[in-house]
Amino acid sequence: MPVTASKVKRRGLMLVLSSPSGAGKTTLAARLLKYDPGLRLSVSATTRAPRPGEVDGEDYHFVSEEEFLRMQTEGEFLESAKVFGHHYGTPRAKVFHDLEEGRDYLFDIDWQGAQQLESRALGDVVKVFILPPSREELERRLRARNQDPEDVVLARMAKADAEISHWAEYEYVIVNYDLDESEEMLRAILLAEQLRRYRQVGLADMVRGMIREE
Amino acid sequence: MPVTASKVKRRGLMLVLSSPSGAGKTTLAARLLKYDPGLRLSVSATTRAPRPGEVDGEDYHFVSEEEFLRMQTEGEFLESAKVFGHHYGTPRAKVFHDLEEGRDYLFDIDWQGAQQLESRALGDVVKVFILPPSREELERRLRARNQDPEDVVLARMAKADAEISHWAEYEYVIVNYDLDESEEMLRAILLAEQLRRYRQVGLADMVRGMIREE
Repeated sequence: MPVTASKVKRRGLMLVLSSPSGAGKTTLAARLLKYDPGLRLSVSATTRAPRPGEVDGEDYHFVSEEEFLRMQTEGEFLESAKVFGHHYGTPRAKVFHDLEEGRDYLFDIDWQGAQQLESRALGDVVKVFILPPSREELERRLRARNQDPEDVVLARMAKADAEISHWAEYEYVIVNYDLDESEEMLRAILLAEQLRRYRQVGLADMVRGMIREE
Repeated sequence: MPVTASKVKRRGLMLVLSSPSGAGKTTLAARLLKYDPGLRLSVSATTRAPRPGEVDGEDYHFVSEEEFLRMQTEGEFLESAKVFGHHYGTPRAKVFHDLEEGRDYLFDIDWQGAQQLESRALGDVVKVFILPPSREELERRLRARNQDPEDVVLARMAKADAEISHWAEYEYVIVNYDLDESEEMLRAILLAEQLRRYRQVGLADMVRGMIREE
């Protein structure tokens, strides 16, 4: 079991991971979720059709376009995006309820999602950017993945550049030289942020009971 | 070797530990120094006489009262205090030089020292408060230590109350239920703070070299 600050009542946090594709973010996210069973991914709402095997309410909340737009208009999303014609969004209510209970969420989103999230939940959001060790290494990883034509690789690199250009909006930066080391860094950030005084909402009462009344 | 963010040029930090006596701070400080050889204690200047075995420039900088007051007047201390008639102070120059080089310092000081330090080095200071799990446990630890008369124990408890009352001035709080767990928490805070974007001063140039010029 991971060390947590769980003996004191605390408010959860939203750990945001962003990076260019190819920097190791998805692997690191999977490792962190495995390490800390108290950490969870939020279930997004989407307008795209379920794929074989996907379960409504588990993989996604599958909703109609009308329903999605209504939720968006009424401010029910912490962040939302349109990708290849389909809407995706993180419903606020469930996440906020769980944060109150001291549960933590992991978000694997890009700089635009991170900006939205922060604007709607400042103080609960901890933003971590994962950088590749070098451009050469990033390019190598993007090429190694598939046998894509050159123009596809170049487009992917341009997208990576655009994502990397937002690194300075993040509180923490991990340069992913080594997955094991990077995972330890990510664990440290999660634990440290759990230990922030203002998140440990049970401390004030605890200290009140500890100091002798005059 | 501990995991550090050392591959990227970074600015060091000053990790401040405060707690009432009896909460485990000194043990935790010793463990953290042993864990991370890159972390160091600053050498204080003092007006008290050397004790047998103490080495000038290693244990303390032993200075005259006149010299100490001159240094104080000229703003050469990051923090200073008078204890039992003797002056103690942390000279600024060496610490600031080392921070530039990416070395970290540990400070085992009370809330007054922490306030001084922060006012003189905001941004480089990370403040951690160690709380005992309960008043009963703190009292047990303070009594177990020596066979002191009741009034001495009570005076010590009153001093502990005064220190604890400042807990909310700290960014991080560790409730020391278990030394191993608390040490892991402290390590996490140190590593996470090393990974803060603004401390990794080498990142901007690194990213500049990574993104393709148009």
